[in-house]
Amino acid sequence: MPSIFDILAFDADDTLWHNESRYQAAKSEFVRLMSAFQTPEQASAVLDQIELGNLSLYGYGMKSFTLSMIEAALALSDGKLSSKEIQAILNLSRAVLTAEVELFPHVAETIACLAESYPLMLITKGDASEQEQKIHRSGIGHYFRIIEIVHDKTTTTYQKILAKYHLSPQRFVMIGNSLRSDILPVVQIGGIAIYLPHKLTWAHELEHDGELPHGSYYQLEQFEQLPGFLRYLEQTLPVTPPPIEPLSG
Amino acid sequence: MPSIFDILAFDADDTLWHNESRYQAAKSEFVRLMSAFQTPEQASAVLDQIELGNLSLYGYGMKSFTLSMIEAALALSDGKLSSKEIQAILNLSRAVLTAEVELFPHVAETIACLAESYPLMLITKGDASEQEQKIHRSGIGHYFRIIEIVHDKTTTTYQKILAKYHLSPQRFVMIGNSLRSDILPVVQIGGIAIYLPHKLTWAHELEHDGELPHGSYYQLEQFEQLPGFLRYLEQTLPVTPPPIEPLSG
Repeated sequence: MPSIFDILAFDADDTLWHNESRYQAAKSEFVRLMSAFQTPEQASAVLDQIELGNLSLYGYGMKSFTLSMIEAALALSDGKLSSKEIQAILNLSRAVLTAEVELFPHVAETIACLAESYPLMLITKGDASEQEQKIHRSGIGHYFRIIEIVHDKTTTTYQKILAKYHLSPQRFVMIGNSLRSDILPVVQIGGIAIYLPHKLTWAHELEHDGELPHGSYYQLEQFEQLPGFLRYLEQTLPVTPPPIEPLSG
Repeated sequence: MPSIFDILAFDADDTLWHNESRYQAAKSEFVRLMSAFQTPEQASAVLDQIELGNLSLYGYGMKSFTLSMIEAALALSDGKLSSKEIQAILNLSRAVLTAEVELFPHVAETIACLAESYPLMLITKGDASEQEQKIHRSGIGHYFRIIEIVHDKTTTTYQKILAKYHLSPQRFVMIGNSLRSDILPVVQIGGIAIYLPHKLTWAHELEHDGELPHGSYYQLEQFEQLPGFLRYLEQTLPVTPPPIEPLSG
């Protein structure tokens, strides 16, 4: 029986592998570095504020975060910053960028299993360089027929991706840990969204302005529940005919 | 009469709009900032070396270049770097990232004209955030049916893109200013490459290890020659049948 889904799309960071934990470790180390100048609370608050203020210009990713750490260090040190702290921040950045990609439990075998039944897509924010390197090092990149690395995940982003591959939203499943980026915009365009919460999700990714009415998306607790849950959806959701033009990719 | 080309793909930086000139201006300013510590030749050489050494880790783009400038400043100043220079480097970076996108002469009307006859694609290196912002501000982004922002442009990159959209190399035209990134790999996979040299092409983009035999690619001097030259190719090149699966996008 053909599937009622054309494609399963996954978020990457904090859905498939650890990411926020790396940023939190870098941030702790930054706060420790700044202890000569400011309290941990002040250092942390200034960094958060600068990071969010820079998002629209710098985008997501570790290079952006590094530039924000340097800018925050300048703001916190009142002109007394030395080469030592700058070097330490660059070293922090390099350590995160070269770290092993650590998959969450059961991700590798679950993705391998799902790839036998569905075309898989990866939709991730960040810069191409960082994300391509992580996808390569993850060891599961080859399971994804399509990889989209985007600046942000809004309804427009998803609409463009669906149009590009001739996908109907009703036959498009998005799986991720961010209400703001993976769930809300997909619900808003009429897609199927499965929320996999992660305890270390960046606060920014939990905030959203839109409404998420009860029952508009699904929530699972464990990644390995996906195959069974998708089989359940296949049996219970109404069948939406595929678009006239075939799926590419 | 249907075209013998399925798609025209363009490089962006230094093919459609000024880019290298922005980097060279930032580099000149960096060298000036470092004049308290080192000669211009030394400052320039150390920055070049660090920038190339960081490419595989940081990728392309202004954020990468900024981190390389900061690393070079640390190396050049022998521990005597102050907040003032770091702030000046961050300001340089911000000025480049927020600068107006300046199209080359005749690009806007030529792209508009070509979009009436061919599907257009943009294939550019860098990070999604920087490139998407530039494409948006360029005012010509809507002419491109497909935009691919990639980490690097190798034969594998082009093969993946062709496979993703079911394109034959013989019916794929790539237009750009970089022998290394736009011409050589496209020639190597059997595609049609049109070289548009730009006097300010980054030296790194002119270096290449592969052979480019005479006659394996075309060269034009002016962007506005493209429509006429493509018509000429349509009349003289042998017709290659399109692939069985239709073009998506």
